[in-house]
Amino acid sequence: MRNHLDFFYFLGSTYTYLAVNRAEDIAARHNVILRWRPFSVRTLMREQNNIPFANKPAKLKYMWRDIERRALRHGVPFKAASSHYPIDADELANRVATLAAMEGWCPVFTQAAYATWFLENKDPGEIENLSAILLRIGQDPAAVIARANGDAVRGKYVSETGEARKLGIFGSPTFACGTEIFWGDDRLEEAIEWCTSH
Amino acid sequence: MRNHLDFFYFLGSTYTYLAVNRAEDIAARHNVILRWRPFSVRTLMREQNNIPFANKPAKLKYMWRDIERRALRHGVPFKAASSHYPIDADELANRVATLAAMEGWCPVFTQAAYATWFLENKDPGEIENLSAILLRIGQDPAAVIARANGDAVRGKYVSETGEARKLGIFGSPTFACGTEIFWGDDRLEEAIEWCTSH
Repeated sequence: MRNHLDFFYFLGSTYTYLAVNRAEDIAARHNVILRWRPFSVRTLMREQNNIPFANKPAKLKYMWRDIERRALRHGVPFKAASSHYPIDADELANRVATLAAMEGWCPVFTQAAYATWFLENKDPGEIENLSAILLRIGQDPAAVIARANGDAVRGKYVSETGEARKLGIFGSPTFACGTEIFWGDDRLEEAIEWCTSH
Repeated sequence: MRNHLDFFYFLGSTYTYLAVNRAEDIAARHNVILRWRPFSVRTLMREQNNIPFANKPAKLKYMWRDIERRALRHGVPFKAASSHYPIDADELANRVATLAAMEGWCPVFTQAAYATWFLENKDPGEIENLSAILLRIGQDPAAVIARANGDAVRGKYVSETGEARKLGIFGSPTFACGTEIFWGDDRLEEAIEWCTSH
């Protein structure tokens, strides 16, 4: 068996909210190490002309209802469909997540950012909200944001997006066990099973 | 609890193959009556500009792999990605399914049509293949096809598509318990749960 599972995600994908709140527990229960790997699904979706919700009101309405039902099922807090969607226009919060992954504080940051989005109905990509999140988790907002705008983090974000592209990833979240990919929070359990049996 | 679940589907949706082979057993186990309701998801997708796989090779490749894995998980036979996709260009097989639903032989027809598509790699919408399927299940091909091209069946197919539209349906399969909709074979168990608890 492999003992790690790659968790490719974009901070801005709605279904990823569920995975961000579920994946660590499930992985730990199966002795699987989860590697949080932020990437720009937006870049890949643009390249692939994959536009799941924009101008698709029926699908959009269903998506929020489905997330609400599944949050309830999994004991994940949920209030209402956020009025902020899409978020993180400049992908700054995603670059902060990239830095966080490089430095080891990615889960706590990502969970806090999603709580801001889903439970406080604020865009975690806006400087004011992002700064509040960083303060809350014990990081220095100005220093972190400066590094997130620097070349090292930008380069890492691009290279992680390239890794996702190579694996055939087209959506977030995607769990990758080697080259076997599982798309969607609803494939988390299958991905873990695959990981522990191959 | 409600004792019936509406199974809206399009004969031509790939994931619907799994539901067509799973739903009756699961429904029966929970004392739920499944109502098979063919509709033109193609019409709704065109209206909604919802094009999930065309010109999206990464997503298409994943879709077949995901179906293969899930078929194995559920004990549903699977050979390989069919080279026929999309199928049923004139939606004749779907109108035959509509007639079958009106006359009570919808499950056996739909299962046979999907077996032709997935296991024999033939388009069940082509007259020759459709006729062979009808013969195999004890129907008169010429008579059935004549009725499937008549106004009564065409009207029913359009009105069922209208019912789906009203429910906010955008994909196949969709399970509807009253106005609560569940999209995807992977939501079948949730739909049954909803149905038996509401």
